Amino acid sequence: MASMTTDVIAPASTIRAGFVGGGFMAAVHSRAARAARAELVGGTSSSAERARDAADRLGFEAAFDSVDALIADPGIDVVHVCTPNSTHASIARAALEAGKHVICEKPLATNAADAAALAALAAERGLVAAVPFVYRFHPMAREARARVATGETGRLLSVHGAYLQDWLAGSHDDDWRVDAALGGPSRAFADIGSHLADLVEFVAGERITRLSAKTRTVYERRATNADIATEDLVAVVVELESGAVGTLLVSQVAPGRKNALSIELSGTDASLRFEQERPEQLWVGRTGASTIVDRDPARLAPDAARLAVVPAGHPMGYQDAFNAFVADAYAAIGGAAPDGLPRFDDGLRAVRVTEAVLASAASGAWVEVAA
Amino acid sequence: MASMTTDVIAPASTIRAGFVGGGFMAAVHSRAARAARAELVGGTSSSAERARDAADRLGFEAAFDSVDALIADPGIDVVHVCTPNSTHASIARAALEAGKHVICEKPLATNAADAAALAALAAERGLVAAVPFVYRFHPMAREARARVATGETGRLLSVHGAYLQDWLAGSHDDDWRVDAALGGPSRAFADIGSHLADLVEFVAGERITRLSAKTRTVYERRATNADIATEDLVAVVVELESGAVGTLLVSQVAPGRKNALSIELSGTDASLRFEQERPEQLWVGRTGASTIVDRDPARLAPDAARLAVVPAGHPMGYQDAFNAFVADAYAAIGGAAPDGLPRFDDGLRAVRVTEAVLASAASGAWVEVAA
Amino acid sequence: MASMTTDVIAPASTIRAGFVGGGFMAAVHSRAARAARAELVGGTSSSAERARDAADRLGFEAAFDSVDALIADPGIDVVHVCTPNSTHASIARAALEAGKHVICEKPLATNAADAAALAALAAERGLVAAVPFVYRFHPMAREARARVATGETGRLLSVHGAYLQDWLAGSHDDDWRVDAALGGPSRAFADIGSHLADLVEFVAGERITRLSAKTRTVYERRATNADIATEDLVAVVVELESGAVGTLLVSQVAPGRKNALSIELSGTDASLRFEQERPEQLWVGRTGASTIVDRDPARLAPDAARLAVVPAGHPMGYQDAFNAFVADAYAAIGGAAPDGLPRFDDGLRAVRVTEAVLASAASGAWVEVAA
Amino acid sequence: MASMTTDVIAPASTIRAGFVGGGFMAAVHSRAARAARAELVGGTSSSAERARDAADRLGFEAAFDSVDALIADPGIDVVHVCTPNSTHASIARAALEAGKHVICEKPLATNAADAAALAALAAERGLVAAVPFVYRFHPMAREARARVATGETGRLLSVHGAYLQDWLAGSHDDDWRVDAALGGPSRAFADIGSHLADLVEFVAGERITRLSAKTRTVYERRATNADIATEDLVAVVVELESGAVGTLLVSQVAPGRKNALSIELSGTDASLRFEQERPEQLWVGRTGASTIVDRDPARLAPDAARLAVVPAGHPMGYQDAFNAFVADAYAAIGGAAPDGLPRFDDGLRAVRVTEAVLASAASGAWVEVAA
Repeated sequence: MASMTTDVIAPASTIRAGFVGGGFMAAVHSRAARAARAELVGGTSSSAERARDAADRLGFEAAFDSVDALIADPGIDVVHVCTPNSTHASIARAALEAGKHVICEKPLATNAADAAALAALAAERGLVAAVPFVYRFHPMAREARARVATGETGRLLSVHGAYLQDWLAGSHDDDWRVDAALGGPSRAFADIGSHLADLVEFVAGERITRLSAKTRTVYERRATNADIATEDLVAVVVELESGAVGTLLVSQVAPGRKNALSIELSGTDASLRFEQERPEQLWVGRTGASTIVDRDPARLAPDAARLAVVPAGHPMGYQDAFNAFVADAYAAIGGAAPDGLPRFDDGLRAVRVTEAVLASAASGAWVEVAA
Repeated sequence: MASMTTDVIAPASTIRAGFVGGGFMAAVHSRAARAARAELVGGTSSSAERARDAADRLGFEAAFDSVDALIADPGIDVVHVCTPNSTHASIARAALEAGKHVICEKPLATNAADAAALAALAAERGLVAAVPFVYRFHPMAREARARVATGETGRLLSVHGAYLQDWLAGSHDDDWRVDAALGGPSRAFADIGSHLADLVEFVAGERITRLSAKTRTVYERRATNADIATEDLVAVVVELESGAVGTLLVSQVAPGRKNALSIELSGTDASLRFEQERPEQLWVGRTGASTIVDRDPARLAPDAARLAVVPAGHPMGYQDAFNAFVADAYAAIGGAAPDGLPRFDDGLRAVRVTEAVLASAASGAWVEVAA
Repeated sequence: MASMTTDVIAPASTIRAGFVGGGFMAAVHSRAARAARAELVGGTSSSAERARDAADRLGFEAAFDSVDALIADPGIDVVHVCTPNSTHASIARAALEAGKHVICEKPLATNAADAAALAALAAERGLVAAVPFVYRFHPMAREARARVATGETGRLLSVHGAYLQDWLAGSHDDDWRVDAALGGPSRAFADIGSHLADLVEFVAGERITRLSAKTRTVYERRATNADIATEDLVAVVVELESGAVGTLLVSQVAPGRKNALSIELSGTDASLRFEQERPEQLWVGRTGASTIVDRDPARLAPDAARLAVVPAGHPMGYQDAFNAFVADAYAAIGGAAPDGLPRFDDGLRAVRVTEAVLASAASGAWVEVAA
Repeated sequence: MASMTTDVIAPASTIRAGFVGGGFMAAVHSRAARAARAELVGGTSSSAERARDAADRLGFEAAFDSVDALIADPGIDVVHVCTPNSTHASIARAALEAGKHVICEKPLATNAADAAALAALAAERGLVAAVPFVYRFHPMAREARARVATGETGRLLSVHGAYLQDWLAGSHDDDWRVDAALGGPSRAFADIGSHLADLVEFVAGERITRLSAKTRTVYERRATNADIATEDLVAVVVELESGAVGTLLVSQVAPGRKNALSIELSGTDASLRFEQERPEQLWVGRTGASTIVDRDPARLAPDAARLAVVPAGHPMGYQDAFNAFVADAYAAIGGAAPDGLPRFDDGLRAVRVTEAVLASAASGAWVEVAA
């Protein structure tokens, strides 16, 4: 059996983490922090009662009464921001200003100006500021990126991407994300299209430069929200730096699709396909013979192999990827420079692509994505 | 074992068929004609020698020296046109004017005006005039269409379509289709995008109304062609009559993809996915539980079941679909009105969608597809 | 597009075929005969009325009143035997004695002595006598065999085979095959296990030498049959000439499985997996990287490529395989020696394996398969 | 998004764990212990130096010089035994005798007598004693079991199981497991066949009663081991309590198969297929229409849903399953009675099945599995 007895990181000293928010993402963040051997100092939420409940459920040492109190605690090194979208920017700003490292859920902000200011602030203060574009942390996504980087695929020609979900497919399905006041002006694209665009650019190693988009709001009224303005689905044609063209389809109303993020990049020499729901394999298409590459650490690129903590055939999944993201962010806090860590600059980038999508959909014209 | 002992059709009297062209498609057409129990009267090709060779290979009773001679033969009821694209319209016109039924390869013409004139001529003469949008004849494509028609999918929301091939992926791969003088002004879209658009509209039961497209010519010089102007790949955002939106990606330069035509339609109640390379199954996506529907004649819609000539688990394929298309066209010649037979109106429709794609790609603007 | 404009065979002169039986298999045989450009002289069935009906449905020139009359017709070269199992041997014998070539459905006979006598008779008369082990005629099954033969898989170590169906899964599902008087003493194994064993031996290039089997009759009473003695499912451990070992599971009562024939052979260097329901691909497993080999004629072994009548990505299926089988059988009648044609010796072999299975199941001991 | 904000367990008080061994399995155990919020008190290994290395790598508070010292530590509640097979029994015995709870890697012992004695000792002392048949902890394996238990599959008819790996496929691949002195008299079956048999019985809810097996040692000499007597592959026919029959194929020399554990159970009403390498789905086969059931907590049986810690479409994997196993074992230590926890009785059961396999292979006869 392959000898994989070391965990992803061995941070120099114990990281002391605090958590804002007590929902699903806070649970995922806190598991990853624990796996990275952090001290889970405490958490806070939208009320003191909820903060205590979250602390009990998630195993925090303490519950804080307010975000301010948590941020002010000198025993906390890093703040995980796991709250509704519209609050990300202000909490992240406060944490950075208090000298804390920050791991902030996406979208980093609901407009590019705020996101840019946060990225600048983090840089100015020399703090680690990361955004969980977590799908970058599947070993086979790294393997895809490494193969593009070494030229195996040749010049990029086309991109075929989709991110399809169905958790808002029913007319009564509802969530705070649906409300623009809490979720921001974009929903489907900001929520999941941003992951798709990030993964395309991460693997391709080049940027989307121009796009033509169409958005659609299927249900203008849901269980608790009315006058809904945020989009349920988005269809986009994109052009990349190298001249590659492609399509992105993003939907939260696609019955039967749970979390179907897929990208297929075709170059002059080979194609690569990665599917988040089957993250253990990478399809490598060649005119001669196509190949399924298994996540076998012994045969992957180093940056992919280092994320493989169990042997091939023992499936790794979403929490494993999240664990690797947090481990790398903590390693950065410890002074390392892990490859591919998504930082606030990447969070800003996602907001810019989202704004281009909304602008194109509004104008019916091609729009350049701000560099 | 299910009792499927009757072939798709039992035409009233024997159809007498003639074939123009001697390449791959002529072979496919002639096999289908034989399966439909036609008399394979004769064929012609680009030279008398080639005509004799094709007649020998494909089992025609006679070789004709010219298209004119074949069309003039009173012993021929139907002419199969299997020649390079730029010649389709003139041969089809001559055959119709001679009172022959016509089965003409797509694209029916290289511009909409010619295609419209042909459709009008066929209607005026009361002749059967069909275009092989053959993917309509997979039982599970029919099943998908039937499920949309009965409302199982609800209101259509999104379309996710692709048609990816790699037979022109090498810079030296070449073909007459690459030359606009023979193949027409569009290549990838006219050749395969037309199949994709036809299948989307056929299954959805509604039309693409507007689109925004981007085309790309990767290789401007191939083995024998230079100054190539026809596109290798196309990315499109489409809007349909009902307001559904979606993406279509079409490429002949996607390494590892052989004939990867796929459509996924998502409605308010269910999604459907059909893949031409796995034509024996239909994925039905529902928020609750998704289902794989096998091609089991006992459980399909009547229009799907009638095309199933072997039991479930005994794969049907491309030639079976082509056989069903020709059988239905011959049945129409015999006076029947088979559901879903693609006629010259459908060939015209495909040219109009193709022209809209080229127009949008040229202007960078959304373009309405002519009704 | 690859140039595949020739059909599998071009027989020297037209073969004149007669058909005994009018059910599903007669339809499949007759389509294949037509595709091979035979003259479909006539057919007969269990009554004169049924014979006329079959002739109408299947497009035969004439209906014969009796098997004897059909066999006696000097205008018939080859007799296709498509009747219930228990009648195969006597009809095949009569046809051979009348100097006809024979294509006889499996099982060739319901005991090895009869099958051996038929094989000897065919050899003595110098007649072509074939049994439709049709799964041999999928190009990728041939490709698998070619790869084993050239040593790509190394020494054979294990065999993992299954043939699962569900058409008898309901307690009321019934058929003449269930009745030992018509179907013979074995049902599931004689019917489909024989295909599985044949394909394993055909691809492996070596024989099953010993086996230990367990059979089970789930329903002793069905809609019209009672006191049912024939087995619904069989589980077998096999040993092959080279010392390879493996398992075969055969069932006609496996809900959801339509015609799930699969074989996976593992050798010292590589594994191969072929699934009849996905016949267009071959999985090649290697410790380093596994590969999906598409049915791309340009890249297959010659014996596989010659059976590929459409390009990669245009699915071939069951009828295509059957067409190739009949074409090869007719080519043999025309004097050719096509590789891999299953003859009466192979039909005898299947009966011997079946008898070993029944013997082992009865005794509870390992049984040698007669050579 | 579904609200899954609670981890699998919330143990009443912190469990204090000690670890014997420092290899791959110790890493997996220790991650699971950390995820369950245990205190990782310390570990030991085959030397003091290795113990310190393991403690550093795996994040233990202390390194113990010897197994005896670790077991004697009053600050340890539970001992995880992750050493070579031949040492399991003696370490587990010592730990139980010291009043510690034990989680012991399989095989629990290298013979049934030792395993039975351990199970008896654990019962007598009232200690939790578990064996990581970890594949029981995939939510969809639980879902399969729940569906069998509620009668959805009907009476069980057949079992189709396999466990195929390739990490010993090369003649030079080697490991302590190959040496019977360290690994015990059975290798492939004890190592992985035991998982397969356990999962079959766990899901089916009934036991294997009789079997006929064939084993094979492909390489009698590897890199460091010679005169190898332990088997590389095993083929088995099994019979279960209800009369169901089936096949099990187990191999560690199957090129391209990494950890391919699969079971397919067919009953009178439905079939179920679970594949460990794709643990997020369960195939439910029915004659009418087959279904893919996604791991969607909202729609699973309670015992499956409680193991689902992230929403559908966010893949769970091997470590998640292991975390759930350890969480349940710790919950049992805390006084709970988690359903489906594999205890020493199950470890004994696996040894008995293994001994039956070896006995049948040696004698060539059917063997009853000791109850």
